[in-house]
Amino acid sequence: MLSTMQDVPLTVTRILVHGALVHGRSQVTTWTGDAEPHRRSFREIGVRAIQLANALRDELGVARDERVATLMWNNAEHVEAYLAIPSMGSVLHTLNLRLPTEQLTFIVNHAADRVILVNGSLLPLLAPLLPALEPVEHIVVVGPGDRSLLDGCRPAVHDYEELLAGRPTTYDWPELDERDAAAMCYTSGTTGDPKGVLFSHRSIYLHSMQVNMTESMGLTDRDTTLVVVPMFHVNAWGLPHATFMTGINMLMPDRFLQPAPLAEMIESERPTHAAAVPTIWQGLLAELAAKPRDISSMATVTIGGSACPPSLMKAYEEHGVRLCHAWGMTETSPLGTMAHPPAGLTPEQEWPYRISQGRFPASVEARLVGPAGEIMPWDGESAGELEVRGPWIANSYFGGAGAEPLRPEDKFSPDGWLRTGDVGVITHDGYLTLTDRAKDVIKSGGEWISSVDLENQLMAHPGVAEAAVVAVPDERWGERPLATVVLKEGATVSYEELREFLAGRIARWQLPERWAIIPAVPKTSVGKFDKKVIREQYRLEQIDVTYVAGAAKD
Amino acid sequence: MLSTMQDVPLTVTRILVHGALVHGRSQVTTWTGDAEPHRRSFREIGVRAIQLANALRDELGVARDERVATLMWNNAEHVEAYLAIPSMGSVLHTLNLRLPTEQLTFIVNHAADRVILVNGSLLPLLAPLLPALEPVEHIVVVGPGDRSLLDGCRPAVHDYEELLAGRPTTYDWPELDERDAAAMCYTSGTTGDPKGVLFSHRSIYLHSMQVNMTESMGLTDRDTTLVVVPMFHVNAWGLPHATFMTGINMLMPDRFLQPAPLAEMIESERPTHAAAVPTIWQGLLAELAAKPRDISSMATVTIGGSACPPSLMKAYEEHGVRLCHAWGMTETSPLGTMAHPPAGLTPEQEWPYRISQGRFPASVEARLVGPAGEIMPWDGESAGELEVRGPWIANSYFGGAGAEPLRPEDKFSPDGWLRTGDVGVITHDGYLTLTDRAKDVIKSGGEWISSVDLENQLMAHPGVAEAAVVAVPDERWGERPLATVVLKEGATVSYEELREFLAGRIARWQLPERWAIIPAVPKTSVGKFDKKVIREQYRLEQIDVTYVAGAAKD
Repeated sequence: MLSTMQDVPLTVTRILVHGALVHGRSQVTTWTGDAEPHRRSFREIGVRAIQLANALRDELGVARDERVATLMWNNAEHVEAYLAIPSMGSVLHTLNLRLPTEQLTFIVNHAADRVILVNGSLLPLLAPLLPALEPVEHIVVVGPGDRSLLDGCRPAVHDYEELLAGRPTTYDWPELDERDAAAMCYTSGTTGDPKGVLFSHRSIYLHSMQVNMTESMGLTDRDTTLVVVPMFHVNAWGLPHATFMTGINMLMPDRFLQPAPLAEMIESERPTHAAAVPTIWQGLLAELAAKPRDISSMATVTIGGSACPPSLMKAYEEHGVRLCHAWGMTETSPLGTMAHPPAGLTPEQEWPYRISQGRFPASVEARLVGPAGEIMPWDGESAGELEVRGPWIANSYFGGAGAEPLRPEDKFSPDGWLRTGDVGVITHDGYLTLTDRAKDVIKSGGEWISSVDLENQLMAHPGVAEAAVVAVPDERWGERPLATVVLKEGATVSYEELREFLAGRIARWQLPERWAIIPAVPKTSVGKFDKKVIREQYRLEQIDVTYVAGAAKD
Repeated sequence: MLSTMQDVPLTVTRILVHGALVHGRSQVTTWTGDAEPHRRSFREIGVRAIQLANALRDELGVARDERVATLMWNNAEHVEAYLAIPSMGSVLHTLNLRLPTEQLTFIVNHAADRVILVNGSLLPLLAPLLPALEPVEHIVVVGPGDRSLLDGCRPAVHDYEELLAGRPTTYDWPELDERDAAAMCYTSGTTGDPKGVLFSHRSIYLHSMQVNMTESMGLTDRDTTLVVVPMFHVNAWGLPHATFMTGINMLMPDRFLQPAPLAEMIESERPTHAAAVPTIWQGLLAELAAKPRDISSMATVTIGGSACPPSLMKAYEEHGVRLCHAWGMTETSPLGTMAHPPAGLTPEQEWPYRISQGRFPASVEARLVGPAGEIMPWDGESAGELEVRGPWIANSYFGGAGAEPLRPEDKFSPDGWLRTGDVGVITHDGYLTLTDRAKDVIKSGGEWISSVDLENQLMAHPGVAEAAVVAVPDERWGERPLATVVLKEGATVSYEELREFLAGRIARWQLPERWAIIPAVPKTSVGKFDKKVIREQYRLEQIDVTYVAGAAKD
């Protein structure tokens, strides 16, 4: 039986109109380096977003459903693009300026971007790529930069401010289906081409509400959030939309992401909240040690993107700043979990919850799928691959210009859940702890062995500097662990001794029988263990493996 | 272009499953008078809701889309019904036990309720109605009460606990369309039959998210909310759903709504929040004056249902309790506005915002429609009838058993907005102040005169005890104000003097020319001016009207 409720779509247009009207006084402050920060009210941003929509439609011929790309830092103009492009029925496509140039080229071509909005400071990155960016017809340059870099380029070049000047300040926004695409972001998987995730108006709206729920970030117009997480990285974790929905002020670092200017803008602008990956906070900590500044205005900091060391969380508490762990991915918009501890605990008791990935909100349904495809219990011990379901979680990828969504089978379960590729455990009260990437788990005789567990146990040995454990094929068990160990300088440790050391700490059937002492663990460009390389070296018999007696599962 | 997001419906089922699982430790505490309060965890409530669903389907044959009625106080069992009935695809129909019996009878028959869950303490109310409640086949008695009152009645009688005992603790919840009806509540208009509003799964889910946003009530599992507003009154303002979504503890007064037990439960259970209409807080204040108790645990109290006198707000501040105004109606689920002042103001500057009806959230779009149907500006001065639009706002009424939704033309605009029947102004930053009911506004020559304004000005005269102004027909202007005045004992004031007194305070064309001194203003059963009676008395020439010279609009 149908309800008697209105069928009103959840759209970015509503966020734009509401923010500019009801929260017109709230501000976006953009850092400018040595000059005065630039301040623009939500009302001004609303008017300029309308002018931008008029310009894109009337001057550049942008159509419904067309992707419009941005290659920009976090700043007020990027917020204008965030609001204008989806509201006119087109799709905001944020380009990750940190990607290798060949990936960037692939993405622009795959998305068929005809228009790129680019910060002037990023022209040195864009200009050399232009000959390979076939669909691009218009470059709109935002802010200062060396425009001579575009001299003689094929696409037409426009100045953002000139494009907006004098445009109408009203726009007859189209009626949209809330399931229509509003924004797009490519994930850069370690294998294969980047894949496009298309966020809908509905997913963005619901995600914004969730961000603004007290159990999540829960900010209001009394807050200012320092948005360090880039706007080309999963919609800056949803902050530009969430802030406009409830009038939260934004502090935008533009390109000034180094520790010194960050410390300076925090001390002078006094944000109450910030969002960034752990490395940013590591860098800031060193800066503060060298030159103390007051950062205590930031009551809470949302931290995500990769696991945050507890030592970092503790170091910030001494500055009066509480770091709060969050987990998510491009395919989850990204808010998956946040690590607020449950009520009624002492600070000591809160600690295990705070270092977990956090708790799921109602809109993110989760399950753990075990080695045999069975659903694992939420007991804090049973591991499984995390699968999630919900209104802001992807069920496919963008197939390319004009194409249908893709459904790579390894990323989505047959019943439509997202396979995260992460293995973890969930406590009975819904707190997630991730332990491994699914591809790094050792599938041994229908059970899983955590490579990360083995590594941590091995690295606890006083003679071991580093240890990387990978799965290698085994005739009897399917897979078995290969333990590669880097010894500390001057240490001499036998394999038998290491195996005995492990035996007291893990289940006997998990003990590796293949061992190798290696000079160094191969690492990726961001410093993570590169297990793909180890597996390849093993396959090519480039690793000198010793088999240590004591059968598995005996 | 479609997004790549999952198409997951927003349902009460999700709220039930999530709350029972992730927030299983949170509690519903039900007051029992002199005995120990009864405590039940969300996990227990979740299991019992599943058992209830099994019992309703397997024992009483409840089908998809069927309405299941509750005639119950606020207690844990009512929460179980709130979650179970919509999750099984049926419709929770809460019966307002304060309605006149003929309205209650009309409503049960109109909704075709076949099953009623009733608190034992309410059997004296229900039993005498049963012969007239034709569709009712099953009565489920919840908790203690004199069951002999049902002896010999036509419907079958069941005991709630016996019905649940031993039922399965799993249920294969149906897949629901989020636009399906989940709950139903009748409004008791002053004219005509009560009208049913059908809330959808979607509207309840979105409303719950909004309630949990920091800009609204913003509670978490660290809070306990005292739910005084009845669960038969617009879903207790959405609290039972919102609390289960994020694990907020509930304190339920059951039938103990008198000031003394309320004071006692606040002091002993220490809720951090409460929700109720102003009269409850008036009564509690008198109780506290007679017998002081510590109620300061309630940091904030959401107050709605009718306008809250500023004096009451100030009195509570002395108890350490901040009252926060909210406005809504059954047709708005009900959250329309909340009166949190904007950031950056002194307590003195906050005051005008706090006594307004409050600010709209993004999901409640508002417009003011003036006398000629034109949209009025948000300038804090231009009055219009408030119309609202949004995903938890009604666009029609329930038409009766099996029937289509009704769309009474005077309640819904042709483009689907709800006409609230309230006249007010909105500031440029979205704060609403209601001034009149639309039916009490005087439509004079294409402009509006506020009857409330005239009354307030008249009552400022030292000789006037009360004044009620109503619209009466006028050949030239359509309508003109009739001012009826009750003088203070011993006062002698002429009509000319009153007119002169007004002349300095309102626009000249608004000055009434029809005057009557009356012995008392007729009042409704809840003490409001009964303007319908005055208009009727005028029509029947039962009021002695004096025409005072000075033409309108001269």
